[in-house]
Amino acid sequence: MPIYPPATVGMPLSEVDTPCLILDLDAFERNLKRLHESLAGRNVMVRPHAKSHKCPQIALRQIALGAVGVCCQKVSEAEALVDGGVGDVLITNEIVGKPKLARLAALAKRARVAVCADHAGNVAALSAAAQQAGITLDVLVEINVGANRCGVEPGEPALTLAQKISASPHLRFAGLQAYQGTAQHLRTVAERRAAIEAAAACVSRTTALLDKAGIACGKVTGAGTGTYIFEASSSVYHEIQPGSYIFMDGDYARNDWTESGIPRFEHSLLVWTTVMSRTSTDRAIVDAGLKASSIDSGMPRVADAPGVEYIKASDEHGVLQLNGAAGYEVGDKLGLIPGHCDPTVNLYDQYVCIRKGRVEAIWPITARGALL
Amino acid sequence: MPIYPPATVGMPLSEVDTPCLILDLDAFERNLKRLHESLAGRNVMVRPHAKSHKCPQIALRQIALGAVGVCCQKVSEAEALVDGGVGDVLITNEIVGKPKLARLAALAKRARVAVCADHAGNVAALSAAAQQAGITLDVLVEINVGANRCGVEPGEPALTLAQKISASPHLRFAGLQAYQGTAQHLRTVAERRAAIEAAAACVSRTTALLDKAGIACGKVTGAGTGTYIFEASSSVYHEIQPGSYIFMDGDYARNDWTESGIPRFEHSLLVWTTVMSRTSTDRAIVDAGLKASSIDSGMPRVADAPGVEYIKASDEHGVLQLNGAAGYEVGDKLGLIPGHCDPTVNLYDQYVCIRKGRVEAIWPITARGALL
Repeated sequence: MPIYPPATVGMPLSEVDTPCLILDLDAFERNLKRLHESLAGRNVMVRPHAKSHKCPQIALRQIALGAVGVCCQKVSEAEALVDGGVGDVLITNEIVGKPKLARLAALAKRARVAVCADHAGNVAALSAAAQQAGITLDVLVEINVGANRCGVEPGEPALTLAQKISASPHLRFAGLQAYQGTAQHLRTVAERRAAIEAAAACVSRTTALLDKAGIACGKVTGAGTGTYIFEASSSVYHEIQPGSYIFMDGDYARNDWTESGIPRFEHSLLVWTTVMSRTSTDRAIVDAGLKASSIDSGMPRVADAPGVEYIKASDEHGVLQLNGAAGYEVGDKLGLIPGHCDPTVNLYDQYVCIRKGRVEAIWPITARGALL
Repeated sequence: MPIYPPATVGMPLSEVDTPCLILDLDAFERNLKRLHESLAGRNVMVRPHAKSHKCPQIALRQIALGAVGVCCQKVSEAEALVDGGVGDVLITNEIVGKPKLARLAALAKRARVAVCADHAGNVAALSAAAQQAGITLDVLVEINVGANRCGVEPGEPALTLAQKISASPHLRFAGLQAYQGTAQHLRTVAERRAAIEAAAACVSRTTALLDKAGIACGKVTGAGTGTYIFEASSSVYHEIQPGSYIFMDGDYARNDWTESGIPRFEHSLLVWTTVMSRTSTDRAIVDAGLKASSIDSGMPRVADAPGVEYIKASDEHGVLQLNGAAGYEVGDKLGLIPGHCDPTVNLYDQYVCIRKGRVEAIWPITARGALL
């Protein structure tokens, strides 16, 4: 399911059925290039986060432009990416439980795979799984650099865990995961810059301890679309992990970017929807609701229609307040900019890729629903 | 995807991998029966809404207990249900656009199918599709009974549209769809009762006009889990459409039910999750975030742990504030009551059905992602 695809290659956009996810390939490709241009002259590796797109076709394009590999959050995402031809995946997350650890170790036999840890018992379980599979597994210590989610505290707790990893014969200590997630949507540039300066200080304190203990740190990796230029400009991060830059959702668009050094990425991802009811002068109902666009970070925005507001979502309906705008008759189609691209992408089975008003390709969202 | 299922039949719940959706079969079956018991002596048909479960196995159990058929919102949902053995489906929604109308008409050749309309142009398109397929299609007029979403206004506008349907040789006017969606989550019984009394008045005004014009109305259908007893007790509704009663989500649990006549349905649906990080005394991180539980109607609640709060969701993480609760060590598994069952179910490919602590069955969520 669904048996009927929303589009076929060559079809004009006007005929593409709704709701579906459309990708403006020109804007998408400009976003891909813009990221690398913004990093010119900076000595940093790019490892985009594939949890945003869940699609090998996109990961391979990112790698072709110079990315060293991709990140993901789940073993099943990593499996989908490796099956799709990606050779290097960092799981920026803790993986818990024997079935997942066995799959992780099996995957590390056929691709370069690394994983994070923040718990001694989990390190022991990772080591047992690696031994069972007959491999040596790369493990990074995740440190809490201000997001207060996963990660051991910087400094001594991180050193202790790194020592435990280093002492495990089937594991290799591969560096620090230092992602400041809550910094990404702080609205002002000054706030985001300050949050990353604080994160970098946490990292420095930790790497100094590792140095003193004679433990080679490998790499420091982290960063997202909201802040990556600050991590890249710090002297402590070796690798950045932006994900949403390829699509640019409504929530990121509310950030201020002025003189941040981060380019204006374009909205390349839209939910394509049809007006299905129009029984009031000021209200139009579209066929894209909660099951077509995640509202966790705010309602979707109507593309190219600043006066029109998407004010309410139910399962399969969205309510547009027209505020006097003309048009929006039953059958009209329009694009919505999702509030948050990652969970929205996870609702669909494919991207309908558009160029110059026609469907150029359909890319499967291979890791849609990859929760395990 | 996912290639690896979270469970196999016979497995103890403690081994079921996470995150996944678990269905407590005993509670689910009690909910199914309780609905019918609460309607004893009332002359009303039950047509549960399948947008909540998207699963033929569940629809067939509802029909076995006396439901006349099911409702759904999309043609692709209806196709999945008919393919799964359901013989009678009402699409409680407007269907717009030639490709969908052609599929709708084709489906009506192999099952009893009806659809709603609120627009004269759409009625003409429905008629053309029915003619093309060589069928007569049942069409209900949707009227706005207070939700201000789809539906023509009660009274004259409804009569005009019913006349247009009746005058279309390939359509049959099959009644009124009169669902008061915004009434479902009004918190007090008095508010919900008053909203349905107002809706019933809208219906009566419309059926009186239809009678006067000599148009047989067929049936009046509507209602949801929050109010169905009021529609069933009115003299104007012939059929009710509750959906969430089978699962009972967190949002519905916040309603007051005292002396409403609606039984206390049990939480039969849980997101099963694992503690994946525990680096602070007051915080545990679980592996179920936005892609495992929709937060549009509030955060999930931790089952059987009133002191513990799920306070924040990111893509693949949930933050539990422990408030002094013991346990919640890395690897521990627990159940979450979703805030809103419908969009949460739509994130998964299967129900892991549990009885007495073991997996009894795995039911596919066949219409997951059925947007078209």
